Amino acid sequence: MTKDAAPNYSDLILAARNIRQFIHPTPLFHSSILDESVGARILLKAETLQRTGSFKFRGAFNKMRHLKAKKNHTEIVSWSSGNHAQAVAAAANILGQHATIIMPTDAPKAKIDGTQRYGSEIIFYNRENEVREKIGESVAKERDAIIVPPYDDPDVIAGQGTVGLEIASQALARDIIPDIALVPCGGGGLVAGCAIALQTQFPSIRVHPVEPENFDDTTRSLVSKKRMKNSPGHQSICDSLLAPTPGSLTFKINAERLSDGVVVTEEQVLNAMRFAFRHFKLVVEPGGAIALAALLANKPSYRNKNVVVLLSGGNVDSDIFGHALGS
Amino acid sequence: MTKDAAPNYSDLILAARNIRQFIHPTPLFHSSILDESVGARILLKAETLQRTGSFKFRGAFNKMRHLKAKKNHTEIVSWSSGNHAQAVAAAANILGQHATIIMPTDAPKAKIDGTQRYGSEIIFYNRENEVREKIGESVAKERDAIIVPPYDDPDVIAGQGTVGLEIASQALARDIIPDIALVPCGGGGLVAGCAIALQTQFPSIRVHPVEPENFDDTTRSLVSKKRMKNSPGHQSICDSLLAPTPGSLTFKINAERLSDGVVVTEEQVLNAMRFAFRHFKLVVEPGGAIALAALLANKPSYRNKNVVVLLSGGNVDSDIFGHALGS
Repeated sequence: MTKDAAPNYSDLILAARNIRQFIHPTPLFHSSILDESVGARILLKAETLQRTGSFKFRGAFNKMRHLKAKKNHTEIVSWSSGNHAQAVAAAANILGQHATIIMPTDAPKAKIDGTQRYGSEIIFYNRENEVREKIGESVAKERDAIIVPPYDDPDVIAGQGTVGLEIASQALARDIIPDIALVPCGGGGLVAGCAIALQTQFPSIRVHPVEPENFDDTTRSLVSKKRMKNSPGHQSICDSLLAPTPGSLTFKINAERLSDGVVVTEEQVLNAMRFAFRHFKLVVEPGGAIALAALLANKPSYRNKNVVVLLSGGNVDSDIFGHALGS
Repeated sequence: MTKDAAPNYSDLILAARNIRQFIHPTPLFHSSILDESVGARILLKAETLQRTGSFKFRGAFNKMRHLKAKKNHTEIVSWSSGNHAQAVAAAANILGQHATIIMPTDAPKAKIDGTQRYGSEIIFYNRENEVREKIGESVAKERDAIIVPPYDDPDVIAGQGTVGLEIASQALARDIIPDIALVPCGGGGLVAGCAIALQTQFPSIRVHPVEPENFDDTTRSLVSKKRMKNSPGHQSICDSLLAPTPGSLTFKINAERLSDGVVVTEEQVLNAMRFAFRHFKLVVEPGGAIALAALLANKPSYRNKNVVVLLSGGNVDSDIFGHALGS
């Protein structure tokens, strides 16, 4: 694929074949308590149980395996708040590559530990006054390395889209046609890939990106039909969803495909984490719980619908998780 | 089946057919970090993700569906520290039965709430000075109800054995022959059922019950070859594994089939819960984490083996879970 071309459904199928032996297929489950509470049929996709604890392994591994196969690239540079970092580190470990990853100083300890455990090198940057892409590009130049971006790349998007392929086949196996999908959105790679997969299989499905308050760049960009930026200076518990603006390629896809964005508060996210603990026995990180938060905060909107809710990751420090349980 | 006859492999197959449409098939997964840390191939069975949050739904539903089908029994009495209670309550709800359940006053709130949510009636008793079986039998007589015991029953054991059937087919699908299975043990129903399933498929597998310290009745009974009692007055964080003595029928099966018991400390259980949080993103209750605790506490014993580790339940109050994360 060329760098700026949006992947299509066939690219997703190829990605699925490329990563199949290395990923965990993850469950699509339902909860009677949740179904009754919303008055709907909810299909929950547990990408928290994916290798490295989030969906990110799919996209990173898809791209990095191509890089290895095509040109034997072994020097990789990337940037990430943590989930893509761990994914790149684990993929490099499997593929015999060396990865250098630019991470924010305030990344969760679980994500820093996970990245180091797989043998990758970390360069820290300050999220407030440094631009990770610039650091990454300069390191890549120095080391003659290939960049594996966290979302704005066709191979990465195709890899994330395999989540959507799995959801589609798991839903069809139960004879369910989803009406709506709620998908966490940071840079927009996951929701773009899933939209391609789900809309090909279910043409009338509505795919909504879900974002934390103050980081609703995609929601606003969908309205204004151009890429908007988040205003600086804000914090959010959803550390995995803090991209400053939609990706160029991801927004090209998302502008064509997505329905309105949904924006949720920190309290709603904490409530969703607690709900997943109590009723699903799953550890979900704040950004990973945001689609569930959107569902729980707007139940009447989903009444009598078949709704896919993506739980995208579970890499959370114990103090934040304890805070969610106690709040 | 007659009340005192041990179920055989065919009974487990029938149980699997009887419950198939009502249970969640649960994942058998592995973790590279755990495999490397032990130097073994570990297969983790996540019954935490079963309906009602533990394996108990399998046995309760198997028996109660038979009761409904054969004689249209609709009045049920049971006793349980909590997981079997929720299972009976959920099964009664599905089957249109009315259940009365004898629970200890100190049962976890999550388990009491879960039981009440499904519409069952709870009668509380004091674990220290009352005998739940006696209360249950007297209530059953009053109400002309059928007793669904938590473990000492062939239909219940056959239902729990379907966990073992699933493990066997999932392991075979990956071309793995397990050498060892570590299974949490309270009254012994789960480990009895799993031993029947696993030893039929893998004749040389060793199945070990795992128990908390001071509640090691099955471990001691396997040595003395007769049913031993736990001495009174002890507490354990493993609320689901506090049966005072092995069941009569379960011990008949277990005495023939099980290898040595493994006994673990409270610290080891808390450590296992933390490990599952961090690396599997799963919420596992203390008693549910005990087989993982045995593995982590005795790594050299399992080196180079294929080891099944059963995570049996995830119904834990947030304060206990927070304690495990912080400890």
